[in-house]
Amino acid sequence: MIVAKRQIEIEWGHCDPAGIVFNPRFFEWFDHCTAGLFAHVGLRKHEMVKAFDFVGFPLVESRARFLRPAKFGDIVVIESSIAEFRRSSFDVNHRLLNGGELAVEGFETRVWSGRHPDDPHRLKSQPIPEAVIAKFRDG
Amino acid sequence: MIVAKRQIEIEWGHCDPAGIVFNPRFFEWFDHCTAGLFAHVGLRKHEMVKAFDFVGFPLVESRARFLRPAKFGDIVVIESSIAEFRRSSFDVNHRLLNGGELAVEGFETRVWSGRHPDDPHRLKSQPIPEAVIAKFRDG
Amino acid sequence: MIVAKRQIEIEWGHCDPAGIVFNPRFFEWFDHCTAGLFAHVGLRKHEMVKAFDFVGFPLVESRARFLRPAKFGDIVVIESSIAEFRRSSFDVNHRLLNGGELAVEGFETRVWSGRHPDDPHRLKSQPIPEAVIAKFRDG
Amino acid sequence: MIVAKRQIEIEWGHCDPAGIVFNPRFFEWFDHCTAGLFAHVGLRKHEMVKAFDFVGFPLVESRARFLRPAKFGDIVVIESSIAEFRRSSFDVNHRLLNGGELAVEGFETRVWSGRHPDDPHRLKSQPIPEAVIAKFRDG
Repeated sequence: MIVAKRQIEIEWGHCDPAGIVFNPRFFEWFDHCTAGLFAHVGLRKHEMVKAFDFVGFPLVESRARFLRPAKFGDIVVIESSIAEFRRSSFDVNHRLLNGGELAVEGFETRVWSGRHPDDPHRLKSQPIPEAVIAKFRDG
Repeated sequence: MIVAKRQIEIEWGHCDPAGIVFNPRFFEWFDHCTAGLFAHVGLRKHEMVKAFDFVGFPLVESRARFLRPAKFGDIVVIESSIAEFRRSSFDVNHRLLNGGELAVEGFETRVWSGRHPDDPHRLKSQPIPEAVIAKFRDG
Repeated sequence: MIVAKRQIEIEWGHCDPAGIVFNPRFFEWFDHCTAGLFAHVGLRKHEMVKAFDFVGFPLVESRARFLRPAKFGDIVVIESSIAEFRRSSFDVNHRLLNGGELAVEGFETRVWSGRHPDDPHRLKSQPIPEAVIAKFRDG
Repeated sequence: MIVAKRQIEIEWGHCDPAGIVFNPRFFEWFDHCTAGLFAHVGLRKHEMVKAFDFVGFPLVESRARFLRPAKFGDIVVIESSIAEFRRSSFDVNHRLLNGGELAVEGFETRVWSGRHPDDPHRLKSQPIPEAVIAKFRDG
């Protein structure tokens, strides 16, 4: 399984008055990490736009479990991987480790989308190209 | 059921290059709205800190479903309510409406927490005071 | 002089571990308030895009002086006004009042911009339309 | 002169509907970079709190000039250095380079602060310790 890792140092401005990371930051980082996971297998967004009828993979559901806090000065690692590819949607899992212990788990469901044939301003779900799935299968 | 409503105008800086609200903003607004829901029944945080052995209600799980986008200039309304009080944890539901249609649903689980008796820097879950529950039951 | 006012309640998530608003938030609010100032005189961005050869007014310089902190639960008011219109650039002043006292002053310089004639992906400064200036002069 | 460098990859969520970094992000990064500059010479915040009568160095003025945009996928470098130490305040300069070209310049003025002798909840400016200045002078 392809796992992309990203290290983040917790900054003063990431934290709330309790001195711990304010929860929306984790969702921001998970979003960055999903882009990073695709880039990790050679699929940068602008390349996917050129190679496929692709506009983006909007989030349809996101969930996180907060097990341990992360505080100013901590150095955390986020491990991101694809949990499942379906026809036109897929799940991404994120595991944020703080000092080696699981601190936050994130789960995203996204839809592979191209331009709607009737209205270029709208998106339409598309089958995920086999070439994309192969990148993750074959590493 | 007590429902607190908050209106938000979508600003340029809330939106991403697709011109729609970047998803972590919704989690930020849900956090604000939970504080607003308690304030709505007369329970502002600093008053709860004084009245109860209360430090905060940290999030243990958060989830959102993204049904419709919200874009720059849209005026949305978030309706927040308590879904369930348990002994020391509770669930908050948020419904974000855009043009009257449900656009994002949010679900938070939080733990009512006081200071740990052995270590003032740690939190410990506490039974939710009956006086708090009564505020929501009796309006 | 046209002054647009906006009230903001300081939320938990706006604040840093010192319990005061983390400084980039003020710049975010100033950006929102500049859009609000134009809307206040009837110039919403999408209307300006239609009425004028207008794409936006990107920031070229921004400055703030932090005189007093704002903390969780404070209710602040931001008063925004145009300090000066020049040929194609203009200055916006923002005064953030907390409990009636000046807490933060903001100064933005922006350039009125349309599409570059040679490259639609680039911006080019344009003279500020007289109709825009008149809106602020005549209130 | 001590210069701390930090590389940042511009993420989708850093950008606004114009596809360029939303300006408050730069102020957030400058704040992180100032902490990083002190850490670079061995002065991490929690160590300074222990070693000196130090609580923090709140911002009293911040300014940025925006020369060139940074967009999704760009990799930028921020070079941060102390411009001047005065008795109890100091200036930090930040130069954000995009593709080797100066894109944003930032200027911060901060005050070295300890606890107020009469009220532990308030800050009071303090002379900057010679040991701190020496770290930057002697590298």
